[in-house]
Amino acid sequence: MKSFMGKNFLLMTDTAKELYHEVAADLPIIDYHCHIDPKEIWEDRKFDNITEIWLGGDHYKWRIMRANGVEEKYITGDAPAREKFQKFAETLPKAIGNPLYHWSHLELRRYFGYEGVLNGDTAEEVWNICNEKLKDDFMSARNIIRRSNVEVVCTTDDPADTLEYHRLIAEDKTVEFKVIPAWRPDKAMNIELPGFGEYIEKLGKAAKKNISDWDSLMDALEKRMDFFVSMGCRVSDHGIDLVPFEPADEKEVDRVFQKALSGGILDAKEVRIYKTAFLLSMGRMYAKRGFVMQLHFGVKRNNNTLMYDQIGPDTGFDAMGKSIPYEELADFLNELNKTGELPKTIVYSLHPGDNAVIETIIGCFQEGGTVGKMQHGSAWWFNDHKNGMRQQLESFAASGVLGTFVGMLTDSRSFLSYARHEYFRRILCNYLGELVENGEYPYDERQLEKLVEDICYYNAKRYFGV
Amino acid sequence: MKSFMGKNFLLMTDTAKELYHEVAADLPIIDYHCHIDPKEIWEDRKFDNITEIWLGGDHYKWRIMRANGVEEKYITGDAPAREKFQKFAETLPKAIGNPLYHWSHLELRRYFGYEGVLNGDTAEEVWNICNEKLKDDFMSARNIIRRSNVEVVCTTDDPADTLEYHRLIAEDKTVEFKVIPAWRPDKAMNIELPGFGEYIEKLGKAAKKNISDWDSLMDALEKRMDFFVSMGCRVSDHGIDLVPFEPADEKEVDRVFQKALSGGILDAKEVRIYKTAFLLSMGRMYAKRGFVMQLHFGVKRNNNTLMYDQIGPDTGFDAMGKSIPYEELADFLNELNKTGELPKTIVYSLHPGDNAVIETIIGCFQEGGTVGKMQHGSAWWFNDHKNGMRQQLESFAASGVLGTFVGMLTDSRSFLSYARHEYFRRILCNYLGELVENGEYPYDERQLEKLVEDICYYNAKRYFGV
Amino acid sequence: MKSFMGKNFLLMTDTAKELYHEVAADLPIIDYHCHIDPKEIWEDRKFDNITEIWLGGDHYKWRIMRANGVEEKYITGDAPAREKFQKFAETLPKAIGNPLYHWSHLELRRYFGYEGVLNGDTAEEVWNICNEKLKDDFMSARNIIRRSNVEVVCTTDDPADTLEYHRLIAEDKTVEFKVIPAWRPDKAMNIELPGFGEYIEKLGKAAKKNISDWDSLMDALEKRMDFFVSMGCRVSDHGIDLVPFEPADEKEVDRVFQKALSGGILDAKEVRIYKTAFLLSMGRMYAKRGFVMQLHFGVKRNNNTLMYDQIGPDTGFDAMGKSIPYEELADFLNELNKTGELPKTIVYSLHPGDNAVIETIIGCFQEGGTVGKMQHGSAWWFNDHKNGMRQQLESFAASGVLGTFVGMLTDSRSFLSYARHEYFRRILCNYLGELVENGEYPYDERQLEKLVEDICYYNAKRYFGV
Repeated sequence: MKSFMGKNFLLMTDTAKELYHEVAADLPIIDYHCHIDPKEIWEDRKFDNITEIWLGGDHYKWRIMRANGVEEKYITGDAPAREKFQKFAETLPKAIGNPLYHWSHLELRRYFGYEGVLNGDTAEEVWNICNEKLKDDFMSARNIIRRSNVEVVCTTDDPADTLEYHRLIAEDKTVEFKVIPAWRPDKAMNIELPGFGEYIEKLGKAAKKNISDWDSLMDALEKRMDFFVSMGCRVSDHGIDLVPFEPADEKEVDRVFQKALSGGILDAKEVRIYKTAFLLSMGRMYAKRGFVMQLHFGVKRNNNTLMYDQIGPDTGFDAMGKSIPYEELADFLNELNKTGELPKTIVYSLHPGDNAVIETIIGCFQEGGTVGKMQHGSAWWFNDHKNGMRQQLESFAASGVLGTFVGMLTDSRSFLSYARHEYFRRILCNYLGELVENGEYPYDERQLEKLVEDICYYNAKRYFGV
Repeated sequence: MKSFMGKNFLLMTDTAKELYHEVAADLPIIDYHCHIDPKEIWEDRKFDNITEIWLGGDHYKWRIMRANGVEEKYITGDAPAREKFQKFAETLPKAIGNPLYHWSHLELRRYFGYEGVLNGDTAEEVWNICNEKLKDDFMSARNIIRRSNVEVVCTTDDPADTLEYHRLIAEDKTVEFKVIPAWRPDKAMNIELPGFGEYIEKLGKAAKKNISDWDSLMDALEKRMDFFVSMGCRVSDHGIDLVPFEPADEKEVDRVFQKALSGGILDAKEVRIYKTAFLLSMGRMYAKRGFVMQLHFGVKRNNNTLMYDQIGPDTGFDAMGKSIPYEELADFLNELNKTGELPKTIVYSLHPGDNAVIETIIGCFQEGGTVGKMQHGSAWWFNDHKNGMRQQLESFAASGVLGTFVGMLTDSRSFLSYARHEYFRRILCNYLGELVENGEYPYDERQLEKLVEDICYYNAKRYFGV
Repeated sequence: MKSFMGKNFLLMTDTAKELYHEVAADLPIIDYHCHIDPKEIWEDRKFDNITEIWLGGDHYKWRIMRANGVEEKYITGDAPAREKFQKFAETLPKAIGNPLYHWSHLELRRYFGYEGVLNGDTAEEVWNICNEKLKDDFMSARNIIRRSNVEVVCTTDDPADTLEYHRLIAEDKTVEFKVIPAWRPDKAMNIELPGFGEYIEKLGKAAKKNISDWDSLMDALEKRMDFFVSMGCRVSDHGIDLVPFEPADEKEVDRVFQKALSGGILDAKEVRIYKTAFLLSMGRMYAKRGFVMQLHFGVKRNNNTLMYDQIGPDTGFDAMGKSIPYEELADFLNELNKTGELPKTIVYSLHPGDNAVIETIIGCFQEGGTVGKMQHGSAWWFNDHKNGMRQQLESFAASGVLGTFVGMLTDSRSFLSYARHEYFRRILCNYLGELVENGEYPYDERQLEKLVEDICYYNAKRYFGV
């Protein structure tokens, strides 16, 4: 029996152990997609207690607490922090096989030095240990990043954002790691949502431009994008229901946009027309600037109206959506590619069943001159667990060239989530080690080291140009 | 090499063996969903021969016989029982990797004491042994249930049913186990099928109520439901093509219902409107009574017209249906939840590819106050095999809190199917043991025992309130 | 650690080793579906160099080279053969976990006697060794087939084809193996594609029949089919987007066909009507002749317009298509079955997620008198890798009777692809061995040998009647 989350956690063979400990463990982290607030880095935020840092905004944890029948007041409500922690601690032992079991204990081990097991009985002990540690400067936002060996953090930012904190951080010579913005124009794309008009106005102000039609919208966005470039931005992100493909001529797109601006109600086709044009335009702007385009799609959000009305979005009531309209994804990529304007692209799959389809579609747009131009992103959200990560690796390998993979990201709001890179690296090394020990790949140390180094670090560095 | 289906069948680690033999093996069974005929329990039915009990109504077995090219007369036809058994015995050795290989041998071992291997050569021997045993009172319906350590049997019953046999059994003090009805109103929901009008009339008679409109239909159903409650019912079941979501106002629903009653032909939308309203109403009645709602969907039935015309439904010609309309399932649950009327619900997946989606949807409706209110049911029908069960467990664990799972059911017409609980428990213990031995979960005997006890027995007891 | 692709490659247990080495390894091959050009067999083609035989037409290899950022001139362009080989050799070590890694090294070992590892450093050595061997008559098309222990090769042929080379080969007494045509009438089915009219004219000429309406089309096809029968044909194949089911009366079908012939543009429904009628007619003709019907569907082809315009179809720009319309597949099979005209049928799944659905649908049409009448074909194309093959086996086994499986085919244009039969057989033996060693199936040597022999050879021999 292996010891619980010991030194060789998830490493089942000698080759895996060697690859992890001698190669992967000490490589720096390029976290090319996360949701950390740059303000918290600038202010070097510290946390009062483990509940604040763990349960303050983590809907993964909220979901398993609800599944365990915990009352909402202990989750997002006004129960005391200690009691909330107790409820979480009591839930955890029942969550065998859940990634939170591993993530939580990895964080306890790596950041708080607690090597025990968290449950209802040990909650008090863990509470005290963690909160004591949190007082230490060692546990400030910046120091957690430093200790995690993070080289680059890409945040997620709105085009209208001033990027003030990015600037402040960049100017601060005491910050050795890079914090660069990522371009996420969801609000400008979501033409059907309330507040679209107000947002466009805000965007216009940020760009110092009156946005009255499609052309001026694109001008404003391009201006903002160049500002993002000046702040080091190299990557975009889109959180969209589905990749749309309903091409229309620019006049029609302009008509739809102006209709929305003037408060008209769009029908489903008009929404698709606008979104298609918007995403194509973005893609072209990315291609021109060497940006990476990230596509996250397939979520059905806000499924629980009752809770939405009480605590709003992003609180743990989203689900996998309808099955992906694969044809539209392929046609969308093709449309950009036709004119040589397809940027480097990462497509994420929310559902493990989409892995194989995504591989085969992106495989149609690989291109000479860029190693691994099209990427199947690391297992995402509901799929971001041990099985999901393993399946994504196997799927990537079976259809593509795994050695070109840009590897892991946190996609997290929490500073402690860098432990997920360790989790990924262990799973990666274990997979490679297994292939080697089973005689499916030669035991060629130099080549294996290169694979691990590339997937954990160098590929991302090259791909994102950071 | 492990011995064939020996003591440690499916148990690959020491922890797995320990958990199974010391904890799981002796726990009682709560079979919260099956298709056993209560009349057969009341009459304490005995069986003439192994063909009668094995091949009399088991379309799983029929299907593999057909796949092996066996003529229909040996399957559902009039060939002698001994010859039918021979054909099955000759098919079995070719069915390596099929759950029937395991189920059949488990039943031979546990109920007939036969430790050998069934094939064409041993068929005569097995035939004789089994038929000899079947003469014994030990092998009566009630005694099989007793020997299987079954505490509760939930049958599947129509709202118009008198539940006469449930009453007789309840009144018989020699029956120590509980046999309680489950509410399955499919006939009242299937408005588009021939015979709907006659059924509604029958239902009205059972409820002593003239059903002439939507209101009186609901009244009649509520009356019947309360009668079911009085007979101990705590659970409902729905076998539906798809979970519909086409909300309409009550007037429209009433119009559709009356149209059908008066022999009108409904269009597809009208059918959906009625079914949506019906299922929502049922859900609300369940919530009021603390019933569990079970949703089985995604089947495409009666695909082989030629055989349907010869031998009717439920004879082995059903298949997985279209992919699940996930949005409608989510919207349906949300509609009930909006008003706090969502009952405890178990959603089953027929297709392993639906596991992850179902997890994320039900995860949006978990709620404080009920441990594991929303459940992803155990692998169902075509998915009810070793891989399917393992995948369901991993999926449940990765997205939810496995320790809240209500576990296994037989979903079977056969008294021998309790062996499937053993099968499930071995797979469960093996999964947990694997996580522990791999260092993914601590070797904490007390906690592990609790997990096994809860999933095998206590969760169901609490959840169903039986 | 197992040695890299050594004697026991992919064989993890003693039983697996025994089954592979003592049973599977020496069985002849019936390659019932491939894309080898019979002309090349007739001419006993030889190859100038390893680039010609490996990179001349293999879009699998092209895809991984593009994924590695190799410029197109080294792939399908005019770079020197040696340089192309170098680029491939440099890509391979990064393609860990890709089937090409195994296929390539298997071919190097079995056909070229090279036991080392191919990479950028060894490319020169491998280039020299392979090209030297290729000069030898041992490496002619016919001799590769002989050395591979191939008994039957089924090519893929158009109904209008003269089958001239099949005739020449059949008459040549020095060819001991059989080369028989397979009927693939895609061009006659693809009514919506440009060139349809010209093709119908060509078909008419081949059949010596003026095709002016649906009846004469069917007559012509039947005539050609009988010619194929006279040349030994026993199997058909269809490469279709989707299995359509839009039944219409013959008059309507005739109208649609004549409209197309006279240059009219068909709408989507008309195309479906024609294709449904066409495929149903083919099925009936197959049933009459005892043909096997193979259905390959679910591909979305030619996704990259830019590359299509440069280098045409079948160059590595296809992908998995939309999810399968399962209902139509079931209804289509039912339509043929209703009148007893459903031929033996193999349904292939491109997407591993379709496995389970396909099993349950074909399971509805199994029939007495033919062992394994309906088959779920071996993992296909993008799914044809170690995991995909294993999953297909497990899925087949879980839902059907694995012992009836007709096993592996190459589906390849290359003479070296017979190594894939070895790959399949190792995976098969490993799966069976695992079940045995885990105690899930008895260690019954006679029965296990029979399973392996049947799946690797005898089932196909019987099923195809070759």
